[in-house]
Amino acid sequence: LSDAPVITFLSDYGLADGFAGVCHGVIATVCRGARVIDITHGVPSGDVRAGALILRGALPYTPVGVHLAVVDPGVGGARAAVAARVGDGRVLVGPDNGLLWPAAQQSGGVIEAVEIGQSPFRLEPVSATFHGRDIFAPVAAHLACGAPLQNAGDPYEAERLIRLELPSPRFELGALVAHAVYIDRFGNIQLDASAEDGERAGLNLGQPVLVAGLHVARYARSFGDVAPGDFLLYEDSARMLAIAVNQGNAGDRLGLAADDEVRIEPS
Amino acid sequence: LSDAPVITFLSDYGLADGFAGVCHGVIATVCRGARVIDITHGVPSGDVRAGALILRGALPYTPVGVHLAVVDPGVGGARAAVAARVGDGRVLVGPDNGLLWPAAQQSGGVIEAVEIGQSPFRLEPVSATFHGRDIFAPVAAHLACGAPLQNAGDPYEAERLIRLELPSPRFELGALVAHAVYIDRFGNIQLDASAEDGERAGLNLGQPVLVAGLHVARYARSFGDVAPGDFLLYEDSARMLAIAVNQGNAGDRLGLAADDEVRIEPS
Amino acid sequence: LSDAPVITFLSDYGLADGFAGVCHGVIATVCRGARVIDITHGVPSGDVRAGALILRGALPYTPVGVHLAVVDPGVGGARAAVAARVGDGRVLVGPDNGLLWPAAQQSGGVIEAVEIGQSPFRLEPVSATFHGRDIFAPVAAHLACGAPLQNAGDPYEAERLIRLELPSPRFELGALVAHAVYIDRFGNIQLDASAEDGERAGLNLGQPVLVAGLHVARYARSFGDVAPGDFLLYEDSARMLAIAVNQGNAGDRLGLAADDEVRIEPS
Repeated sequence: LSDAPVITFLSDYGLADGFAGVCHGVIATVCRGARVIDITHGVPSGDVRAGALILRGALPYTPVGVHLAVVDPGVGGARAAVAARVGDGRVLVGPDNGLLWPAAQQSGGVIEAVEIGQSPFRLEPVSATFHGRDIFAPVAAHLACGAPLQNAGDPYEAERLIRLELPSPRFELGALVAHAVYIDRFGNIQLDASAEDGERAGLNLGQPVLVAGLHVARYARSFGDVAPGDFLLYEDSARMLAIAVNQGNAGDRLGLAADDEVRIEPS
Repeated sequence: LSDAPVITFLSDYGLADGFAGVCHGVIATVCRGARVIDITHGVPSGDVRAGALILRGALPYTPVGVHLAVVDPGVGGARAAVAARVGDGRVLVGPDNGLLWPAAQQSGGVIEAVEIGQSPFRLEPVSATFHGRDIFAPVAAHLACGAPLQNAGDPYEAERLIRLELPSPRFELGALVAHAVYIDRFGNIQLDASAEDGERAGLNLGQPVLVAGLHVARYARSFGDVAPGDFLLYEDSARMLAIAVNQGNAGDRLGLAADDEVRIEPS
Repeated sequence: LSDAPVITFLSDYGLADGFAGVCHGVIATVCRGARVIDITHGVPSGDVRAGALILRGALPYTPVGVHLAVVDPGVGGARAAVAARVGDGRVLVGPDNGLLWPAAQQSGGVIEAVEIGQSPFRLEPVSATFHGRDIFAPVAAHLACGAPLQNAGDPYEAERLIRLELPSPRFELGALVAHAVYIDRFGNIQLDASAEDGERAGLNLGQPVLVAGLHVARYARSFGDVAPGDFLLYEDSARMLAIAVNQGNAGDRLGLAADDEVRIEPS
């Protein structure tokens, strides 16, 4: 057990239906000994970017293994299905729609990839709508149990992998203009700016800042540094700047959605 | 690990409380080595039929093992609690209220069953309201770790098992009148009709069809074959006809509930 | 596998984001062979008491192991982080905010505790907001894989552990005045009174009782003992009195929240 192969699994299948469970069943059928770690199945339906960001954030904290990710609004269409070995030895498996890109970049870039749409490991007959079950899970399981990557499909040039465009912050006179990148269940808003970006814009830890021209927040270390109900700006666990309300929901309070601009300036 | 016994687990316990987790704890206490696969715990509360359909759909994709299923609105009442070995070697464990029936039929029918309400494997004292913890999980775990079925309870004639009545489609002049059987989290509506039924009603892949007398849908292979927001009819991953909206929610758009009739005709 | 170490895991992280999954990844990185049992991640955000009650209710049904619990509204603040060995051999790991207290008391009380905020097992750099990932999960994993408790942190006197105050019922002339303690997903309302308390107040199994001065309920064994839509009072699976509606939602019907008083008297 202590050297069981690891498969991590992320999807937008939710847990209300049996989709994720069926994929677990397929994995256990092919590679009984694999240890499967669910990162989340709660990615908003079809939201490739949210899935890509969660995957990228989680991977450094999981053992090197096979990393199955399925957020696949184009299932059954022209998008490729891929398995890709990256620089640190991980193998990513999923649709080639940008979902795997940020994680692959962070892990040293793609070393070798194969197209698995016609993989000998897939389950026949392949449905047109559930490639998680029929293609991605069985390929991931065979790879976890030791099958060589090149046996999983046809060679696929690393350069062909679809990139994911992410917004980036900009600097205006005395202000950092960042974007809401991801809002979690607590309503905490992750920005596309780092603490270094904040420093460049004149934001200092412990000082008040003005958020969206309206809300005074304290640039603090953690929630408890401000009163309940108050806003704070902080460096979150992914080492990015984020906005929160102590014991409250900043996403609701600010009415922000992904990609919305957020202006932050010294107050 | 590679020959660990498998227990699959489906229920309507949800994941907000500790019910499913407690059953996992009981299983691990009795049979530490079992690998437990959660099919789903999101069956709508008390919806035996939805649970039965998800169970039937998932089982062919899981290893042969012990299959624990608990959707049990009659807990503490007169319904029997059973463990049943079926034709393909699986053992199903749960309340005898129809939940197990479709899966049992699909797996070759019940070969041998026992009533486990007084099982020597149950946890004492047995509560009146949580038989998942006190009866079903410990019985499943003992069976997974090798206990013979007949040791789990008293003989129960296979013919006594409660059947589950499911609707069936009918054919009218130039139309297929099917029923909404299951609506998943994406709003995709599974019907009780197969592609062969559709053919018999004159529906042809690639052609437009009229759904519910109102909506034009394309009979397509997959979502991407129609524009975003458009309806499609397709053969789903369970090989049944289904209605969806590409990047939308057909269940919401049509306002359908389980068992509602859906008329489909060539357009 | 049959003697794999067990870690149970409870939190308010939810399953929509990757928080719980990342902690699983950390555990597998440190102690690949541990079997992790999720009790629930659906504790209402920041609700220490609900988490404490679910943990206490679940523990007797799980193998003795390491029990990781994270409901931590004070993360990054002054609250201590602890690992505590209790009388029955379990080790509890989490924030010292009352969350662990009821489970510790039930398991024989704290024998030995350490403060783990500066644990050598933590992940560096420690974030200010995600101690589940950076402190609690890695400490739990090292302990599960055999590290001695005293190596996990600095000695912490058992007497310093934060207690959790719970309401208790009182008796008035011919009535039991209890409190709603926990309301589950089915809307069943657990009270802070036992069947013995009910007996003392003159409530008899099988007889009608008056709930909240308004609703007639039957004091029954199980749901099916009353008609659908009717109220019942019953001894629940935690051996506490509870109020439910057969095939309905008592929490919604009574409009109760945690800690609200509920008067129950013979009818």
